[in-house]
Amino acid sequence: MIRRAAILSTGDELVTGRIADTNAQWIADRLFEVGIEVVCVLVVGDFPDRLEWAWRQALERADLVISTGGIGPTADDLTTETVARVLGVGLALDEPSAAAMRQFFATRGVDPMPANNLKQAMVPCGAVVLPNRLGTAPGYRATYDGRHLVVLPGVPREMKPMFEGSVLPWLREQRGGEVYLARTFQTFGISESALDELVAGVVDPQAGRLSFRASFPEISVRLVVHGPPEEADARLAVLGERLHARLGEYCYGEGALTMEEATGRALREHGLTLALAESCTGGLIAHRVTNVPGSSAYFLGSIAAYANAAKQALLGVPADVLATHGAVSEATACAMALGARRAFDSTLALATTGIAGPTGGTPDKPVGTVCFALASADGVRSVTYRLWGTREWVKLLASQVALDMIRRYALGLPPHDPALFRRR
Amino acid sequence: MIRRAAILSTGDELVTGRIADTNAQWIADRLFEVGIEVVCVLVVGDFPDRLEWAWRQALERADLVISTGGIGPTADDLTTETVARVLGVGLALDEPSAAAMRQFFATRGVDPMPANNLKQAMVPCGAVVLPNRLGTAPGYRATYDGRHLVVLPGVPREMKPMFEGSVLPWLREQRGGEVYLARTFQTFGISESALDELVAGVVDPQAGRLSFRASFPEISVRLVVHGPPEEADARLAVLGERLHARLGEYCYGEGALTMEEATGRALREHGLTLALAESCTGGLIAHRVTNVPGSSAYFLGSIAAYANAAKQALLGVPADVLATHGAVSEATACAMALGARRAFDSTLALATTGIAGPTGGTPDKPVGTVCFALASADGVRSVTYRLWGTREWVKLLASQVALDMIRRYALGLPPHDPALFRRR
Repeated sequence: MIRRAAILSTGDELVTGRIADTNAQWIADRLFEVGIEVVCVLVVGDFPDRLEWAWRQALERADLVISTGGIGPTADDLTTETVARVLGVGLALDEPSAAAMRQFFATRGVDPMPANNLKQAMVPCGAVVLPNRLGTAPGYRATYDGRHLVVLPGVPREMKPMFEGSVLPWLREQRGGEVYLARTFQTFGISESALDELVAGVVDPQAGRLSFRASFPEISVRLVVHGPPEEADARLAVLGERLHARLGEYCYGEGALTMEEATGRALREHGLTLALAESCTGGLIAHRVTNVPGSSAYFLGSIAAYANAAKQALLGVPADVLATHGAVSEATACAMALGARRAFDSTLALATTGIAGPTGGTPDKPVGTVCFALASADGVRSVTYRLWGTREWVKLLASQVALDMIRRYALGLPPHDPALFRRR
Repeated sequence: MIRRAAILSTGDELVTGRIADTNAQWIADRLFEVGIEVVCVLVVGDFPDRLEWAWRQALERADLVISTGGIGPTADDLTTETVARVLGVGLALDEPSAAAMRQFFATRGVDPMPANNLKQAMVPCGAVVLPNRLGTAPGYRATYDGRHLVVLPGVPREMKPMFEGSVLPWLREQRGGEVYLARTFQTFGISESALDELVAGVVDPQAGRLSFRASFPEISVRLVVHGPPEEADARLAVLGERLHARLGEYCYGEGALTMEEATGRALREHGLTLALAESCTGGLIAHRVTNVPGSSAYFLGSIAAYANAAKQALLGVPADVLATHGAVSEATACAMALGARRAFDSTLALATTGIAGPTGGTPDKPVGTVCFALASADGVRSVTYRLWGTREWVKLLASQVALDMIRRYALGLPPHDPALFRRR
């Protein structure tokens, strides 16, 4: 049974920084779904010795090697000859592939086809050819002495359908009885180390594996279990609920849910409409809210009142509030929220005003100081956070705090305590 | 002299397909600029044996190993102990890092700091600590028996400034007499293949190397030359000017300049102020404009009028314009731009209205249809683009077109022809 895979990505463009190796991520994700563990990803440029090293290492450490790239027609495409050398097998012309290639060129008016293309129809003896519907280079898979290898093109739009059409079904067969199952919980408002302490002891390492992923300001917690289907399923349900309960109010959703989606869902479910008055976040909250398809059902609009004159003219912030408390104050935030609620005639309105930096801070109100206010039929409430980091980071954190504030209000949860929200 | 590097990326999230290894690409790109060749990238999950294997292989194949990830506070952060084991060096507490960490937590009201954080201040004996201005985990570099290693955090926003601030200058010193010099030009409004044709023949491959990088919608063109400092410097100047001239109006700036910075610079230089009326872009243009420090000097604010009622009430779009032409029309865009200019009393106002998708398209106005209008003392002009892709993509492209429209107006350049802006 195949348990461990190595992914091998070949191409100068990968080691000179021109493109990111998104193929490896995509393949790793698919392998995870069928319960095959990726022990390593190896990336090398188009050099015979480096490619040979990578293949030897990969075959030694895994029982399945999946390679992308290096099977085109040019001289720097070295994958197939390296496979043949490393495994000591010969090459043979795959006649159907050669015929398909000639056909491909003939229909494009190129006849005879350039000779170097024939190289792409040479595959290791005994290999099963995987047809390429979108390009000229076929892929192949082979098994020698119990070691499996899959060779795919590097172009993602050719590689992906080949993997899904020809490789995945074969892998599922190989896997036999065991499955890997996962649940992911999204959290906000707690640092990664505090989260680590919070969930300590919830999952016995023998029964399941926990991993964190900080795509800050969101941190997700993923639980993975494996075993025979029914047993794994039952274990995932029990451990998942236990983990979910421990995460408590820090967990805003499960799966690939974003904060703006969770907030939108809460607004929609409770029949609320939203308006915004943004100063320091400068449109970012509105941008995130409107990234969710269908947000026009609950989002009415936003006024980004960057200049004080705009705060007065468009949001009705009284001049004396600005003069007495300053633009960055809870009093101004409250007046902005009330003004936005009035201007858009929404059920809820949220306002932000703060100092995103890098300049503009004072000892009293350092860079990162952000005041929030939420106006509703219940009146207006406000809070001040001390955020940190670069300008873009302060904006991002502030937008996250704002969305969470809206979500919590819509769901009837207590407000988040700013003191709990610390840098990790 | 350092010639060959290995990049080592650590983290379960990389081998389970949760994220792509963008760090490796970014680092490879920087190393390319200083003329260091990447012989391999190794990616492994958080397992002691796999990490050890990766470190041994990397140290064997390269004279510089750059590692990201695995230096956080949690139990699955194993990089430093692996380095110590593989190289046979002890660990020591870096007092300044520990003090900075305590300070960090104290200013956030966490005192004493959680004990597991102290682990992050343990570094191999003899290592030079690289401060982390944006997180708690410091990085470090060390040299043992002529083998160099650099250990960095995995979070890109912490890793990148650390690399640029502390690693790159050190690498440049190591490179000795020959220098690699680069100039990068940012372009917009032309496809990558059209760009490739445009610059064909401008640079003799013996004298310099050209590479493109599509971080779409922006495509940058990089010119790299190498040789003795003065010679390389002179060659870069000559070839750079030749390339710049060929790129013409497609080039909006040089270096790491973003479109919002170029636009802001143009507004500031010509003493113009800007207001926005955003419908389909939903706040994204305002967000990008306000990402630029000091944007309050020219940016007055934005009204994201998502609901038609808001377009009428806040921007004064006449009901009959909406009824006759529809919300997605140049007539509505013009009324929005004029309304925003009036509301904010700005010299320029730009409006967007369109169909970001995935639903809402019609045969006449398919998803991706976006109308733009620019109001100024000269009156109002409008244009319609047919954009493409996902919802977020349409928003991003539309924001880019809008910023470029503002920039061109401010600089007195002719408007961009929508027909030239095609999907690559």
